[in-house]
Amino acid sequence: MKSYIKQQLKHYQEHNHEKARLLVSCPDQPGIVAAVSTFLFKNGANIIESNQYTTDPEGGRFFLRIEFEAGGIDEKIGQMRGAFAAVADHFEMTWSITLASELKRVAIFVSKELHCLNELLWEWQSGNLLAEIAVVISNHEDAREVVESLNIPFLYMKANKDIREEVEKQQLKWLEEYRVDVIVLARYMQILTPEFVSAHPHKIINIHHSFLPAFIGANPYKRAYERGVKLIGATSHYVTNELDEGPIIEQDIERVDHRDHVEDLKNIGRTIERSVLARAVKWHLEDRIIVHGNKTIVFS
Amino acid sequence: MKSYIKQQLKHYQEHNHEKARLLVSCPDQPGIVAAVSTFLFKNGANIIESNQYTTDPEGGRFFLRIEFEAGGIDEKIGQMRGAFAAVADHFEMTWSITLASELKRVAIFVSKELHCLNELLWEWQSGNLLAEIAVVISNHEDAREVVESLNIPFLYMKANKDIREEVEKQQLKWLEEYRVDVIVLARYMQILTPEFVSAHPHKIINIHHSFLPAFIGANPYKRAYERGVKLIGATSHYVTNELDEGPIIEQDIERVDHRDHVEDLKNIGRTIERSVLARAVKWHLEDRIIVHGNKTIVFS
Amino acid sequence: MKSYIKQQLKHYQEHNHEKARLLVSCPDQPGIVAAVSTFLFKNGANIIESNQYTTDPEGGRFFLRIEFEAGGIDEKIGQMRGAFAAVADHFEMTWSITLASELKRVAIFVSKELHCLNELLWEWQSGNLLAEIAVVISNHEDAREVVESLNIPFLYMKANKDIREEVEKQQLKWLEEYRVDVIVLARYMQILTPEFVSAHPHKIINIHHSFLPAFIGANPYKRAYERGVKLIGATSHYVTNELDEGPIIEQDIERVDHRDHVEDLKNIGRTIERSVLARAVKWHLEDRIIVHGNKTIVFS
Amino acid sequence: MKSYIKQQLKHYQEHNHEKARLLVSCPDQPGIVAAVSTFLFKNGANIIESNQYTTDPEGGRFFLRIEFEAGGIDEKIGQMRGAFAAVADHFEMTWSITLASELKRVAIFVSKELHCLNELLWEWQSGNLLAEIAVVISNHEDAREVVESLNIPFLYMKANKDIREEVEKQQLKWLEEYRVDVIVLARYMQILTPEFVSAHPHKIINIHHSFLPAFIGANPYKRAYERGVKLIGATSHYVTNELDEGPIIEQDIERVDHRDHVEDLKNIGRTIERSVLARAVKWHLEDRIIVHGNKTIVFS
Repeated sequence: MKSYIKQQLKHYQEHNHEKARLLVSCPDQPGIVAAVSTFLFKNGANIIESNQYTTDPEGGRFFLRIEFEAGGIDEKIGQMRGAFAAVADHFEMTWSITLASELKRVAIFVSKELHCLNELLWEWQSGNLLAEIAVVISNHEDAREVVESLNIPFLYMKANKDIREEVEKQQLKWLEEYRVDVIVLARYMQILTPEFVSAHPHKIINIHHSFLPAFIGANPYKRAYERGVKLIGATSHYVTNELDEGPIIEQDIERVDHRDHVEDLKNIGRTIERSVLARAVKWHLEDRIIVHGNKTIVFS
Repeated sequence: MKSYIKQQLKHYQEHNHEKARLLVSCPDQPGIVAAVSTFLFKNGANIIESNQYTTDPEGGRFFLRIEFEAGGIDEKIGQMRGAFAAVADHFEMTWSITLASELKRVAIFVSKELHCLNELLWEWQSGNLLAEIAVVISNHEDAREVVESLNIPFLYMKANKDIREEVEKQQLKWLEEYRVDVIVLARYMQILTPEFVSAHPHKIINIHHSFLPAFIGANPYKRAYERGVKLIGATSHYVTNELDEGPIIEQDIERVDHRDHVEDLKNIGRTIERSVLARAVKWHLEDRIIVHGNKTIVFS
Repeated sequence: MKSYIKQQLKHYQEHNHEKARLLVSCPDQPGIVAAVSTFLFKNGANIIESNQYTTDPEGGRFFLRIEFEAGGIDEKIGQMRGAFAAVADHFEMTWSITLASELKRVAIFVSKELHCLNELLWEWQSGNLLAEIAVVISNHEDAREVVESLNIPFLYMKANKDIREEVEKQQLKWLEEYRVDVIVLARYMQILTPEFVSAHPHKIINIHHSFLPAFIGANPYKRAYERGVKLIGATSHYVTNELDEGPIIEQDIERVDHRDHVEDLKNIGRTIERSVLARAVKWHLEDRIIVHGNKTIVFS
Repeated sequence: MKSYIKQQLKHYQEHNHEKARLLVSCPDQPGIVAAVSTFLFKNGANIIESNQYTTDPEGGRFFLRIEFEAGGIDEKIGQMRGAFAAVADHFEMTWSITLASELKRVAIFVSKELHCLNELLWEWQSGNLLAEIAVVISNHEDAREVVESLNIPFLYMKANKDIREEVEKQQLKWLEEYRVDVIVLARYMQILTPEFVSAHPHKIINIHHSFLPAFIGANPYKRAYERGVKLIGATSHYVTNELDEGPIIEQDIERVDHRDHVEDLKNIGRTIERSVLARAVKWHLEDRIIVHGNKTIVFS
């Protein structure tokens, strides 16, 4: 990592070392917010941002994200987690408390098309993606130059469906070696095995080059052109073992018309892919997404 | 028709009685624009607006729309058409010349949900839809009050799939009686028979309550909710005998999120349907759409 | 009011008679959410929706909106307000608790252009504006027909700047007589006196036909045309005694280009005005807006 | 210039060496299109794209852009221009014929904020900006690394208002030396002298970080924040000697809300600036813009 980016991240960490995020998901019932906010107050925490959502006021599921500030939290986080367990048990919560200053370690998988990788690197250099980009993994050499120019490790290994298992075995080793928390498929054109996906539940973010579910599968721009649609879109979603069917994080579209040939649609699409993927990754890094069944709750 | 609307339309006709529109579609070759514009110049016409498009510069198909003004055109339109036939033959054109002052006669088919009908009536009263709304046909009584309050004939006949043929026979009679040029399905929930559709090629405009081809078929909002999409859309298209597969005229979307339940999606969707259908109908009335295969060229 | 609208509103009230909204604004300090949510829990309330915002984590101002459900709230609202006063005092809160079933009474002021009035009436008939439209007041007769057709009182009085005081005296009398809670200026082209405005702080909603502060004052579309802007907008804001300078509630824009003449801009603008005003009124009716200085916090 | 970009541009030139663009502006009268298209036909040209616009059908001004293909045009362009002069004289045209393969030479002026420069370089590397980036000129060293890594000359000279004349003298020398056709101010924070501007009429493209005319002048994001606007915009325009008043080429906006502090607005704004400037530059490079008084006609 280049030194100016390192300094920038360090600066962020120092200025946010008292910040943490609580994510909660549990059956809805009265008293949850009272219990949680009283807990936080007693533990010296000040709520900065709070979002909640109930699927259904009558017997639904309750979701909560609280961003708070508490002196010394970076040292007593373990203790706070221990104390919160009692509240969590009472309400049958699935929950997490994470430190804003504990940067997630990201691996970016890329192939030959670099626009999504470039956008992520650019947003990262601009201080908009607060993460450690631990490694870039590719089955082509195209990205090496830009990646290494930022002092990010670039790992190349040929990949295709015949050697998938062998490749993934190596990739899993790399992911462990680089202590990766989240995998971003930035137009990585290989299908992952069920084993690989299952090992990273809601940790793999993909960008699909269509407004799902409109053109699931291959060649969406070509099919969009043939169908004569007037809008082109992109979808970022978590990868599950149902191809292109994982929980949608973000989508966006752009207007096109009859004059746009397949190449134009691809070009316009690339711009949408860039911004949609960047937003999805940002929300994930800031713990703003809770997955519920096959949907996401995004507290953006 | 209420007298103030009648007056408004008359005013439009008087101020545009010298305006006409030429639509052309033919194999591309050099000299088409030169021939057409020279023809118009020699016939005393001044070009107001001109749009053209070629599918492919090498041996593609050429499309042209010219709006022009010519003194006395309302009287010599037949003569001009006759003269243009020679040019048209030479280039193997499919073509039409229509008078801007010759208002198309519209039939609106509606069922119980009135938001699209209301939007069309509202845009019509505002002078944005230049047409004669000849008749509203429905299988429910819900629209009668608003339609008759504008002095538009409202024709009711019960409809369902068991009596489809009988119903359509009556509807075809009505369409003839009211000399209808274009049929707008403003959330008319009945499927039309192949015979009915074939009798009106590119003359039936439908509004589909999804961003096609995303949720073809029934209950798109429910399915959009279940899929957790982040955008809700609507599509206006010409009706063909492939269900929801006809040439798309216009589409639009609106952003939604996890908090929007099916009812909210419907509500948001209704707003998009209103504007998408109104735009499609407007373009059709102004002869701005050429159908090419299963796509539209919209010179908007 | 037509009976079907009356029934629709009654239906809403019956299904939401246990719902209420708490709005709070106070200096930020730890423990506010804990205190409020514990209060609600102890009073048998279940939080449905909660939004908060702090202008600045260090010594800023804190804003909170909680929508909650509590059995029998419609009967014990007075008691609850009394009990909450203690919490409110401790934190120096400005606050309110309102019943969702207590519909606000709206007066719409209109002149000759009816598109905004029509949109409000339409949204109201569709069940999207939950309010009693108590009266429509105008200095022209144009709106009488549509207003009276819905059985809403229509009050006409000539108005111009020479008789402003006399007119406003009458209007104030009417507002009192019809127990009006909120005034919507739906393209009412008269300037209100400081006295009239001061008597209704943050209770008068205006629609301005430009993207403020771009074209403050008269003839914004003409000036937009002359400046050659590529976007046309509208702004809804609370009226204060600084002309066009009150707190902005909502804004939106639409793309235009060189082909759009002043009339086209007006037309496009009208569509934006309709939706922007309708959204602003809806948020006000649902107690989603808190005014802070010359800005709004909109918990939409 | 890096060799792969050079190759890419060469490839474009070879595949478009028969393409040219005719731009025309003249008083409207019948027969212009007939004369021009007949001229083109007789000179062996095939029209690929054609756009026209008349300010006013009665005695207005007429604008035309035709993109055409003609065998050997790159060699006989001088001859064609000579022949067209007769047509042009007859209709009192202001006109130009340019070769698509003759790439414009661009100078980018930049200061310390690099997001607009980066976007332009990125779009250029992607093949979306067909130009020779001849030189980057700056009063800071921040951009040197990225610019020189692409083998583009980077010229540094300190600048401030006290040494403006001296600086501009040097810059003008550089512009001549590098044979620059168009100057892009990519967040160059210095004001140019009237002499400098007058020497490049409609050749200097600026990006202003607001939706003009909303926040003319300094600190637009701070002022937008204080005004509480709900939309943030950017404007690209040609530079004239009226500060921020030159002909607008393109504008766009993004939605913001009360939670966005000045820093957030700046961040969001930067994204809009990037895309708005890139679009404006692209249209200029493709000869899609005609300036008429203080407005632009953009045949996009």
